[in-house]
Amino acid sequence: MRPVDLNCDMGESFGIYKYGADQEMMPLITSANIACGFHAGDASIMRETVALAKAYGVRVGAHIGLPDKSGFGRRYMEMSPKEVYEISLYQLGALEAFLRAEDMEMAHVKLHGALYMMAAEDKKISDAFVQAVHAFQPSLQVYTLPGSQTAASAARMGLRVVNEYFADRPYPSGKVKMFGWTLGEIGSPAAISARVAAMLENPAYADIGTVCVHSDTPGAPTIMGAIRDQVTQHA
Amino acid sequence: MRPVDLNCDMGESFGIYKYGADQEMMPLITSANIACGFHAGDASIMRETVALAKAYGVRVGAHIGLPDKSGFGRRYMEMSPKEVYEISLYQLGALEAFLRAEDMEMAHVKLHGALYMMAAEDKKISDAFVQAVHAFQPSLQVYTLPGSQTAASAARMGLRVVNEYFADRPYPSGKVKMFGWTLGEIGSPAAISARVAAMLENPAYADIGTVCVHSDTPGAPTIMGAIRDQVTQHA
Amino acid sequence: MRPVDLNCDMGESFGIYKYGADQEMMPLITSANIACGFHAGDASIMRETVALAKAYGVRVGAHIGLPDKSGFGRRYMEMSPKEVYEISLYQLGALEAFLRAEDMEMAHVKLHGALYMMAAEDKKISDAFVQAVHAFQPSLQVYTLPGSQTAASAARMGLRVVNEYFADRPYPSGKVKMFGWTLGEIGSPAAISARVAAMLENPAYADIGTVCVHSDTPGAPTIMGAIRDQVTQHA
Amino acid sequence: MRPVDLNCDMGESFGIYKYGADQEMMPLITSANIACGFHAGDASIMRETVALAKAYGVRVGAHIGLPDKSGFGRRYMEMSPKEVYEISLYQLGALEAFLRAEDMEMAHVKLHGALYMMAAEDKKISDAFVQAVHAFQPSLQVYTLPGSQTAASAARMGLRVVNEYFADRPYPSGKVKMFGWTLGEIGSPAAISARVAAMLENPAYADIGTVCVHSDTPGAPTIMGAIRDQVTQHA
Repeated sequence: MRPVDLNCDMGESFGIYKYGADQEMMPLITSANIACGFHAGDASIMRETVALAKAYGVRVGAHIGLPDKSGFGRRYMEMSPKEVYEISLYQLGALEAFLRAEDMEMAHVKLHGALYMMAAEDKKISDAFVQAVHAFQPSLQVYTLPGSQTAASAARMGLRVVNEYFADRPYPSGKVKMFGWTLGEIGSPAAISARVAAMLENPAYADIGTVCVHSDTPGAPTIMGAIRDQVTQHA
Repeated sequence: MRPVDLNCDMGESFGIYKYGADQEMMPLITSANIACGFHAGDASIMRETVALAKAYGVRVGAHIGLPDKSGFGRRYMEMSPKEVYEISLYQLGALEAFLRAEDMEMAHVKLHGALYMMAAEDKKISDAFVQAVHAFQPSLQVYTLPGSQTAASAARMGLRVVNEYFADRPYPSGKVKMFGWTLGEIGSPAAISARVAAMLENPAYADIGTVCVHSDTPGAPTIMGAIRDQVTQHA
Repeated sequence: MRPVDLNCDMGESFGIYKYGADQEMMPLITSANIACGFHAGDASIMRETVALAKAYGVRVGAHIGLPDKSGFGRRYMEMSPKEVYEISLYQLGALEAFLRAEDMEMAHVKLHGALYMMAAEDKKISDAFVQAVHAFQPSLQVYTLPGSQTAASAARMGLRVVNEYFADRPYPSGKVKMFGWTLGEIGSPAAISARVAAMLENPAYADIGTVCVHSDTPGAPTIMGAIRDQVTQHA
Repeated sequence: MRPVDLNCDMGESFGIYKYGADQEMMPLITSANIACGFHAGDASIMRETVALAKAYGVRVGAHIGLPDKSGFGRRYMEMSPKEVYEISLYQLGALEAFLRAEDMEMAHVKLHGALYMMAAEDKKISDAFVQAVHAFQPSLQVYTLPGSQTAASAARMGLRVVNEYFADRPYPSGKVKMFGWTLGEIGSPAAISARVAAMLENPAYADIGTVCVHSDTPGAPTIMGAIRDQVTQHA
């Protein structure tokens, strides 16, 4: 089986509020998408999460979200392309400071929640986002949905696209169902890891470069552990 | 008369709210301290202000404040040195992204409002701030009050200190009166520029490297214009 | 000419940021819609604005907006009816406290910006908003667009509807053009006040109960003054 | 043993972030102090928490905090008495709206975190807070520390003071140690409930009207359950 990157959303705590199984997930993944203080996270959490990633040798990317902490960046908001460019640059820079202080380099970037879907579906939004990434650091990998506007914008501007497979979402008829899914549709950790293994050997998914488990999916560390075992065993 | 840097706080608008005479001040100054979204400013304002600075060839620094937009960073807040380190890094990085997108480099850093005074008076706070600057970019100049803890921390860690003279604050007995001053004590633009000129020739102020006019002082552009004329004329 | 209520959005400053010509508008109007700290305003501004309304004997209503100060409540945000109910109650209560401290009573309620349009067009949103108003104080008048879902919801639940005419928006073909208008389409203060006077005598507009001038329309006090003169003169 | 009110801080979650054992604590207490969206909580959480209190017949009070969600209202902030008056009124009103919608009445008010201590120690702050309570609803009970400035201000203005005993804080030499305590100093739930029982029979504590367990003290429901058993058994 071909090797594959394993990514997870991290650093989504805020102030006294804890969120996500960061301590358990970090040893299992190869790439951490760290929240940058807009949809979640703050300067303290960012520093801690970067340090945790460093301790486990995990690559770090910016997880860029809408300015809506009370909605966790999951509510669609009307944003102009100009605003998307600006909030993307801001968040990229903010995270980079913590990496620089740890002598690390940013490896990738991924949009979060509603902004992920807005860019995937709207060329103006995806172009604005990719322009910000390009202006900031053209070597960054752009994690996104295969066939999305984000992938197209990144390809047009010469950025490297990494297509995502969502291990903890159902793929009825081969297409991801991002919303309105049930735990039954996802299945057990064993079923999930088997599905990931099959996907990795399926030529139809040859363009998949990274596998995501969301940190707030129930049993996320168990799921990621099962995938990691499966992938490592066969690699 | 020796030449001197002229600095001003910029980019303090927020959303629909306009603040400060940025358009009028930018042509007059040599260094702009740009708010980074904590005490004031936001991603849109930061982008605009960086572009304005570029248009006039003005050096840009980060103006780092407390996370208190409703109090404009002027209210003292209890912050641990760790928190000060973290919010300083965050803001430095956020501004840097906009500079990088314009092929510019950050030149200096200055604390804002209550945080400026907290660091000036408390070694633990000033050390934390300077550590963040050092971790981020050791070549940054640190603008601060002569004789402050901030100056001492920066000197200890090998950073370049630039001592500030506040043109729009009274200096009774030769010491700046930051709070509780009146417009009468400051005097007219002509009186101010004469005071700055005298200061620049006074050996007691030989360590002054920059002159500040706050953008929200009544008549700030007129005051800065008078100083600039005075300084340029004699330089 | 029949008498008519004159309303204006007020209390939209925030912290150090000033917005709107509240001092000039308050003497001219009969109803003030006061921002409640979500899209604009804060506890200090609310207190001041309530006191200003009291000084001029102006009726006070809650101006309820989206939780988006950086976008001034003008950006559409995905909100569930449940969330709209909750943020409406919260803002109604917050304003009421300031009225109670001044021995005043709330007279009306009006939605702001994007939320005004969302409720006008979506029955679920307008029902949720009106349920909050009903639960809070069923005697409140609901200011809204004639023919809107908000008007229908309010009527269904037995609340009093007050239909608005926007003096500072063009009415091509008799229907308000809320967005994308130009100052040329609006015309001079004299033209506006003549239009309002004609509207008030036109049976087609017999259901109009209040006339609005936005505080941030250029020349708002002059426009409202001209309308007031026209209305008073003929009343 | 004389009966005593049992209070707990509630509704301190925010958005997706859960905090405190509200479900477990509500059946055990007689008074809930509900956060009002400044240091914690939001409109959704407030509505849910009020409904939960209603379901268990628990009295509701406003838990008023500093405008600092990232610091959970625990960081001292410089606030003028005027600002304290204003943010107190705002929060009282916001909570009242949710009570009114459930046909409930507010019973008491309590300051949170740093603001609790600021008012306890500074007469200007406590006066401003009590003036807001008085202007809003003079029948509200004011929960506070015995001998505090808050108690003195409330007494002067004719408000009812309810003195608090903190079951989950040590009382070395009979005086509460609010900060810097250890779990060892607090002791087991059995030790705590025995201490509370002894306190209630001790004439030196005859002025204590309510016993508080913080919802974020480890084992809070067990502690409160033990106290409740002790108090109920002997009452």
